[in-house]
Amino acid sequence: MTGAPDDGLDALETPCLILDEGRVRANLARMRAHLDRLGVAFRPHLKTAKSLDVARLAMAGPEGPATVSTLREAEYFAEGGVRDMIYAVGIAPGKLDRVGAVRRRGADLAVTLDSVEQAEAVSAWSRRHGDPLPALIEVDADGHRSGVKPGDAEALVAIGRALDGAALRGVLLHAGDSYALSDPEALAAAAEAERAAAVEAATTLRAAGLPCPVVSVGSTPTARFARDLTGVTEVRAGVFMFGDLFQAGVGAVAVDDIALTVLATVIGHRRDTGWIITDAGWMAMSRDRGTARQAVDQGYGVVCDRAGRPYPDLIVADANQEHGILALRKGSAAALPDLPVGARVRILPNHACATGAQHGRYHVVGADGRAGAVWPRINGW
Amino acid sequence: MTGAPDDGLDALETPCLILDEGRVRANLARMRAHLDRLGVAFRPHLKTAKSLDVARLAMAGPEGPATVSTLREAEYFAEGGVRDMIYAVGIAPGKLDRVGAVRRRGADLAVTLDSVEQAEAVSAWSRRHGDPLPALIEVDADGHRSGVKPGDAEALVAIGRALDGAALRGVLLHAGDSYALSDPEALAAAAEAERAAAVEAATTLRAAGLPCPVVSVGSTPTARFARDLTGVTEVRAGVFMFGDLFQAGVGAVAVDDIALTVLATVIGHRRDTGWIITDAGWMAMSRDRGTARQAVDQGYGVVCDRAGRPYPDLIVADANQEHGILALRKGSAAALPDLPVGARVRILPNHACATGAQHGRYHVVGADGRAGAVWPRINGW
Repeated sequence: MTGAPDDGLDALETPCLILDEGRVRANLARMRAHLDRLGVAFRPHLKTAKSLDVARLAMAGPEGPATVSTLREAEYFAEGGVRDMIYAVGIAPGKLDRVGAVRRRGADLAVTLDSVEQAEAVSAWSRRHGDPLPALIEVDADGHRSGVKPGDAEALVAIGRALDGAALRGVLLHAGDSYALSDPEALAAAAEAERAAAVEAATTLRAAGLPCPVVSVGSTPTARFARDLTGVTEVRAGVFMFGDLFQAGVGAVAVDDIALTVLATVIGHRRDTGWIITDAGWMAMSRDRGTARQAVDQGYGVVCDRAGRPYPDLIVADANQEHGILALRKGSAAALPDLPVGARVRILPNHACATGAQHGRYHVVGADGRAGAVWPRINGW
Repeated sequence: MTGAPDDGLDALETPCLILDEGRVRANLARMRAHLDRLGVAFRPHLKTAKSLDVARLAMAGPEGPATVSTLREAEYFAEGGVRDMIYAVGIAPGKLDRVGAVRRRGADLAVTLDSVEQAEAVSAWSRRHGDPLPALIEVDADGHRSGVKPGDAEALVAIGRALDGAALRGVLLHAGDSYALSDPEALAAAAEAERAAAVEAATTLRAAGLPCPVVSVGSTPTARFARDLTGVTEVRAGVFMFGDLFQAGVGAVAVDDIALTVLATVIGHRRDTGWIITDAGWMAMSRDRGTARQAVDQGYGVVCDRAGRPYPDLIVADANQEHGILALRKGSAAALPDLPVGARVRILPNHACATGAQHGRYHVVGADGRAGAVWPRINGW
């Protein structure tokens, strides 16, 4: 640690999260400019960051709009003044009282559903409580998860009509299959398919005399590669704010734009095997191995120096719960860097959502290159 | 949820952890009896449970002994009265002040190391603070991670001598390669290899006139399959208390003994694809896919009814952050159970350490079969 620059990192307990504020701001500015050109609103998904400080950088204003993936997030952001949120995971009737409690605190929290069963429960709850809950119908963009098929007019209209005691607000799609792509043309086609499915479903509802003011689409890859969003009113995306190696493999972010790293300390060496051992195992990185299915397998992460510059070919080749095993990629001609016990490295994660969730706060590197501010984040449900 | 049994589960917000106290106690009793027969002490590893309530069931007495994987655990358990702990991850010199603070609160916390570099730092710290830190030398049982090779007498003795300002307490091994096995004879051989390596290293230190009172080995598979532990003084193991599908694949626990499940709520269906969607995605289950490398790939978990009985061939076939996708195993002739929106299921996890860490508490099912007590758990560093 001799001669360490005055970057504030030595004062931190490892492992911990480092967030590069400048990169977050640049990633947001780029997405905002892109969506402005396309003429759609941005409703940032806060499931990656789960931090009010990050939300305030991401949202159009301090009151939103925003997207959340859990009611815990909805409660936390409502407490922080966010007033316009979509809970973008299918609603269970047993969760409606918690939704109602957030709404009574002044937040316009909308729910998501894809069945008549749920719509009837939401209508019944709305009538019973005198609070017509805004609801979006989830439409299936690409067969990867939940949602009504965009061409299933019968189901769409039946759900819309079953919401008669509530407030049908529109349709919501997520093109999750885009995560498996990496060719820009294929990604642009996935974005267009998501748009077309959204517009088809909205048109069906409107033709049946039902309201559909909101047409909401979103995923980081399709948001990034969309060329035309005619008929769409808003885009949800979240992970692009931080970026990660998986999204870099898709081509949706650049490695140099990744804002989130895990700070780790070297705790040992195995000179016989060429391993450097750190205190950032899978508990700090998460178990996410999404890049294993991509063209370049990044192990449990790419190892950088304390300024965030990747060492040639050095990855977290394997991990135990509290041990990270750094090694050169197979076949690499690079030299193992000289990292004594106590040296600090930063590791780019496979998946920012998963890695973030292993931690309770961000240590923020500001414009001066020093770690200073601490931004808390939440977890759980 | 009409006709739901009075099991206390409907009152819980999902997803959440359910812990079957009877199974935890039975798993502990079985291990204790086994180690008693082998004549060795048990130093439970608390990295899986991270809960003082579970620790009190696992430890020989309220003061320990115990094993921890982070200093956060050491601080938490010391606060709860535990007085005898090994921090079983290689020490970084920058963490010694935190070790010292735990010790000043009355806990005998020992550190682990495998280099002269670390030993010199521990000795220097010990002299500077007038507190001779107890230290165990990590010995490599099977080439899977850290540690001095058991036959490397020169390194062992050099580290032992470099601890002259501290307090050499013994050797510590972890046979991590046993996780890749499943044949009982191979597992027994791995346990014997771990024992032999431990005894060889201890003999080397003692022959050099160095103290080696503690000979500590441990992993759930080798603890379970050890037939003779002559020369070993204590066994560390942790995940067996809860069990999981990965350890069941190894053969170290039975599926019926798994004490940890995730309670989930059905939030939708895809009748065209045969999917049932729940609110327990990878955030609730963890990203651990360890069973993918075993004979039976359990997806993200095995789906059980609310009493914990597995549905035939129903697994979490895929997962998004907050969506679990339940489906029958490929080729199964079983019928999909009738699980309406709002129904509750319990999911056996791949890896109890990873799944537990996604949550902040256990909801405990007691002898009456009802969920009642809440046991908090910690996370982070």
